[in-house]
Amino acid sequence: MPGAFLVVEGPDGAGKTTLVKRLAARLREAGLTVTEVREPGGTPLAEMARRAVLDPSLGASPLAELFLMLAARADLVTKVIRPALAAGQVVLSDRFELSTEAYQIAGRELPRKPVLAANRLATGGLRPDVTLVLDLPADVGLERLAVSGRAHDRIEGAERRLHDRVARAFAAAEGPSVVHLDATRSVEAVEQQAWDAVRRVVKELIPGEPGLKHPSGTHGGTA
Amino acid sequence: MPGAFLVVEGPDGAGKTTLVKRLAARLREAGLTVTEVREPGGTPLAEMARRAVLDPSLGASPLAELFLMLAARADLVTKVIRPALAAGQVVLSDRFELSTEAYQIAGRELPRKPVLAANRLATGGLRPDVTLVLDLPADVGLERLAVSGRAHDRIEGAERRLHDRVARAFAAAEGPSVVHLDATRSVEAVEQQAWDAVRRVVKELIPGEPGLKHPSGTHGGTA
Repeated sequence: MPGAFLVVEGPDGAGKTTLVKRLAARLREAGLTVTEVREPGGTPLAEMARRAVLDPSLGASPLAELFLMLAARADLVTKVIRPALAAGQVVLSDRFELSTEAYQIAGRELPRKPVLAANRLATGGLRPDVTLVLDLPADVGLERLAVSGRAHDRIEGAERRLHDRVARAFAAAEGPSVVHLDATRSVEAVEQQAWDAVRRVVKELIPGEPGLKHPSGTHGGTA
Repeated sequence: MPGAFLVVEGPDGAGKTTLVKRLAARLREAGLTVTEVREPGGTPLAEMARRAVLDPSLGASPLAELFLMLAARADLVTKVIRPALAAGQVVLSDRFELSTEAYQIAGRELPRKPVLAANRLATGGLRPDVTLVLDLPADVGLERLAVSGRAHDRIEGAERRLHDRVARAFAAAEGPSVVHLDATRSVEAVEQQAWDAVRRVVKELIPGEPGLKHPSGTHGGTA
């Protein structure tokens, strides 16, 4: 695939949305065509799955939630991400498979091996070129959400422990494409560190840039 | 689980709906409490997934379709099937996991091993006590659908080959719980053969029936 697949991950309140906007602006300033996506979502089917996950009256169990997420991901990969990469674009996604590891495996405690296998089936083996992980202790993230009005109540007990497991799973993420960013730093500092990592990956896609040879084929899998 | 889990499978046009109705009536006449379900569906979340699969404007890919089906199945198993079995009821389902093998694996040609693993994750290992498979050659099934107005156009080419693969997969199904029924026979003959198989499974649940000891634990898996 000639394009580049960039993913921003991290717990709620870590600043993913802000970072995605800022990176998209810098990539466009550099002359690149950027497709921004947000998981779950980005296609009519994926948005329907998102509504089903978020609708409290449907009471999705952890397993139903997982499979709705994977339906959304499979649809997004097939209809949006792979075509954009094939056209040489930069795809910038707010969440991808690491969120499944953090929320469904670490958070909801679904079994690791079959969930990862189901995820590989959903993505066809597509892997990000870089996964930017915004690390934030769970208590700082919850405080940020409370201040911004995105969490109305004090989260305690079982739900608090779930948030802790999610935050720890993000912090423990590792792999050749993973870059950890300290989300307690300023927005500007996080953006600069993120840009340094992104620039290395997209360098040869930038018009007029001498660049490195693009490590083609690193996305893996089949369409 | 003290109840009994009965599944009716087969290609479109084989007579599943008729057989489910007739078996449900006979089970109730025998004094049993019957929960009838139809896949995909049976819970608000599963009905939403069903609409997503059937909505042509959403254009679900085979993978997205698979995961929507598994979301629906996971929700149905958790919220309806397991509670009914735990309460000693007979659950009678129009389709279950064999339909995934026939439609998604044989029909859509998704990879067998990871799809079966994802299905096991969705069901938590729950298996039917009996799977009644209505065997019908694909051309007979298509003709029946056309006559009944459920298929408007002559199905040819790639779609015809898909129907053939599905019918062959149903015919080839095997396992300790599988009972094949010749769906080209009369409705009454099919019902009687089905009832003979069902009666063996539900015998000890029938009030006042001497019965055999129920092979408890055969459902397998965990809630």
